[in-house]
Amino acid sequence: MSTDIPGAPPSTGATDTVSPSPFPGTSSEGPAGPPLDAVLDRARAAADEARTATPAERARWLSAVADAIDAAADTLLPVAQRESHLPDTRLSGELRRTTFQCRLFADRLSTGALDDIHIDHADPDWPMGARPDIRRTTVPLGPVLVFAASNFPFAFSVVGGDTASALAAGCSVVVKAHPGHPELSRLTAVTARTALGDAGAPPDLLQLVEGEQAGADAVQDRRIKAVGFTGSTRGGRHLYDLAAARPDPIPFYGELGSTNPVVVTPAGWAERPEEIATGFAQSCTMGSGQFCTQPGVIFVPDADQFLAALPPVTAGPMLNERISTGYAQTLQELSARDGVEIAQRTPGGEGRPDVVILRTTAEAVRSDPSLITTEVFGPASLVVGYRSPDEIDAALAGLEGTLTGTVQAGRTDDEDGLRMLGLLARYAGRVIWNQWPTGVTVSDAQQHGGPWPASTAPTTTSVGTAAVRRFRRPVAFQNVPVAALPPELRDA
Amino acid sequence: MSTDIPGAPPSTGATDTVSPSPFPGTSSEGPAGPPLDAVLDRARAAADEARTATPAERARWLSAVADAIDAAADTLLPVAQRESHLPDTRLSGELRRTTFQCRLFADRLSTGALDDIHIDHADPDWPMGARPDIRRTTVPLGPVLVFAASNFPFAFSVVGGDTASALAAGCSVVVKAHPGHPELSRLTAVTARTALGDAGAPPDLLQLVEGEQAGADAVQDRRIKAVGFTGSTRGGRHLYDLAAARPDPIPFYGELGSTNPVVVTPAGWAERPEEIATGFAQSCTMGSGQFCTQPGVIFVPDADQFLAALPPVTAGPMLNERISTGYAQTLQELSARDGVEIAQRTPGGEGRPDVVILRTTAEAVRSDPSLITTEVFGPASLVVGYRSPDEIDAALAGLEGTLTGTVQAGRTDDEDGLRMLGLLARYAGRVIWNQWPTGVTVSDAQQHGGPWPASTAPTTTSVGTAAVRRFRRPVAFQNVPVAALPPELRDA
Repeated sequence: MSTDIPGAPPSTGATDTVSPSPFPGTSSEGPAGPPLDAVLDRARAAADEARTATPAERARWLSAVADAIDAAADTLLPVAQRESHLPDTRLSGELRRTTFQCRLFADRLSTGALDDIHIDHADPDWPMGARPDIRRTTVPLGPVLVFAASNFPFAFSVVGGDTASALAAGCSVVVKAHPGHPELSRLTAVTARTALGDAGAPPDLLQLVEGEQAGADAVQDRRIKAVGFTGSTRGGRHLYDLAAARPDPIPFYGELGSTNPVVVTPAGWAERPEEIATGFAQSCTMGSGQFCTQPGVIFVPDADQFLAALPPVTAGPMLNERISTGYAQTLQELSARDGVEIAQRTPGGEGRPDVVILRTTAEAVRSDPSLITTEVFGPASLVVGYRSPDEIDAALAGLEGTLTGTVQAGRTDDEDGLRMLGLLARYAGRVIWNQWPTGVTVSDAQQHGGPWPASTAPTTTSVGTAAVRRFRRPVAFQNVPVAALPPELRDA
Repeated sequence: MSTDIPGAPPSTGATDTVSPSPFPGTSSEGPAGPPLDAVLDRARAAADEARTATPAERARWLSAVADAIDAAADTLLPVAQRESHLPDTRLSGELRRTTFQCRLFADRLSTGALDDIHIDHADPDWPMGARPDIRRTTVPLGPVLVFAASNFPFAFSVVGGDTASALAAGCSVVVKAHPGHPELSRLTAVTARTALGDAGAPPDLLQLVEGEQAGADAVQDRRIKAVGFTGSTRGGRHLYDLAAARPDPIPFYGELGSTNPVVVTPAGWAERPEEIATGFAQSCTMGSGQFCTQPGVIFVPDADQFLAALPPVTAGPMLNERISTGYAQTLQELSARDGVEIAQRTPGGEGRPDVVILRTTAEAVRSDPSLITTEVFGPASLVVGYRSPDEIDAALAGLEGTLTGTVQAGRTDDEDGLRMLGLLARYAGRVIWNQWPTGVTVSDAQQHGGPWPASTAPTTTSVGTAAVRRFRRPVAFQNVPVAALPPELRDA
């Protein structure tokens, strides 16, 4: 998911300067806020308290946060709308997603579904030699730093998926607020902190810091034990490098760039041309194209026909000026490449972005694979015409990691489609058949990630209940008396 | 586990120069070996073949490798003994561990125990909005580079735990041979490759390269998708940095340094002084102290009594000259620190290392935490005397990640012991009660890792069947027809 979090140098953004905060515990740089050092000390103290909390207690804390945010919706939504320019229906849906997500983690904590345990009783006859009693569970990593994203001011921000999964894991969280929605960030943090306190949790389980320097400093601080990030490849890479360069490197879970290629097979196109053209146009422009799963590339058997079938679409205002400028720049660069032309440009007017459809061929992609790995963050996509499905095989060989890969195939026995799905699974965290990649549900089976640059940690997911695994580490208990065993490791 | 794999610059080791190999496919730098580029191309091709193999096929391949190594024991063991100076009983036990490990992975593949799947059927009433059918499984990462260790020429070398778990995961493996046992490495590789070929697997699932430059080059090559490493903190850090600096960073699973602290409680010491002193002396000198889980630090309530109770022990020859020199150097540095003295030195004589017991106080550790985080790779340990258990709490606050933490406590109701176990679990991958850390069994519940520097990836293990998770990544299949679903995701 690309946002406007910039990379190196860490403090260039005019919109990301020091913001004094009227809320205690919600800013580290403003004159009214505590210094970062105090925030991190409190994060460590809160993590120590949370470490010994039961899953049932953590579940109650998450539910309390969800309830408080739902109750504050009428206050939060207008602020979100003003700061993000996103329509009210979209934001209220996103708020629902956000609190649902907290409650889903709470539910899974209550049922033990998130446990990852194994018990090996002592075995004197174990073939490699007598085996002691060993029981493995997981424990929280400690304070987690979460970088909020711009494009989902609720669901990937202060109490978004990274925060919810880290809290579910029993970690404390320091959120680096996104400068695109500062007031909403502070309001959300205060709401959540109050709810945590009222529910008997340490309120410092969740703290907010503002400013790029605070974020960069915190990444490098020994008290922080893991980082969650959603944003641009450039910004994420900068922070990843900081985490990796620590004297004690820590896990950095970054969800960065993705082009989400779609392959339309000949059979799919023959059967459902209108449905595919309409579905694509909607998916391409949804949220003004500011979704990490926006289909940036689509392979079609007949580019002329496909372009002719596209319904007219427009897009709403973009999140902020920086994203708007970045969109125009990347578009210009991509459209200047050999073999690429602008096929359609629908002017946005009045502070809205143009919707742009670029066009190229599978042959050109084969010569320049970066055509299908360059993410344009906004309502634009590249239509890649191919003559035979074999050309797609060759073109996809230049793909990098991507969050999603989609096949639009015939309804039955589409061998091309089956093969393409297998190819896309080599690069993607999620493969989709006859649906569209935008709209990432939160569930137990969900996977949101992939090889670099989709994620800095390809074995993990940042959406869905499995996201909690990122913030816990295994500990084995050998020959340990019942009194010292975590409850989940005791014999039933 | 510290070995003598050096760090930067990558090609200083006199024992690690180019070795021509008579075995095709087992050296990348010798005049007789293929160039690294060809090795990596073949690794990629083999990974493509392995990707579509069923778990049952991979199980058969691993069993075939185990059978072949058992059958070649009479050839392999004498070479191992000559190159490593380790006694025959130790090596034959290690060989048994190695083939058992392959068979354990094979067994777990056959039963589906290593699967990590989740199926969410479509749900129109999902609270955040209608949910599509999503099914998640895992797929292999691709070619894995494994750095062999010196101190376990079978179990952490060519067909050691990293290789076995990567093969179980469906990856191909390129092993960087350890220069401490080059001939054994080549013989093992040829044995395994032949077995793979005979079992119908691509023999290039396992290839060997030699030389530090080849290893460093391979870490940075795009065809390599993950790295497994067991060795010194310095060497591991150098390679970790190379992996993290790639244009496309990849997971680096390094098991580096550990001091494995032991806490003897007052009650434990009162009940079992002889048993504890004898157990410690054995654990300290086992394998000449060249174990990653060697107890390098022990807290005791009465240092004088403890030292007086230690039985006389000696150690066998060390693995090689470089480790021997490093042992002497680190010992000298540590013994020169404020508050540290040499309490006992048992001369080894005739190419054997001295066994050295250093001594300090909990107070000194509190002033200089590095006393208990400095790993001495060899038969030496630091005895830390304390006056009250509270002093240990304060001293342990300076600990870093460690593979193990051990409590030697009273048999019943030892509150000090229970508290210490909880403290150690904050830093350790495995906590042990009234047993010793050396001797790491291979089982499903085993955990071998921990926060930095015990591991570069604290959420993973390098020993036990869960090690396979390091080399697979999740992929979600959304709305995908049965024909394109991996078998494990089809409705029963």
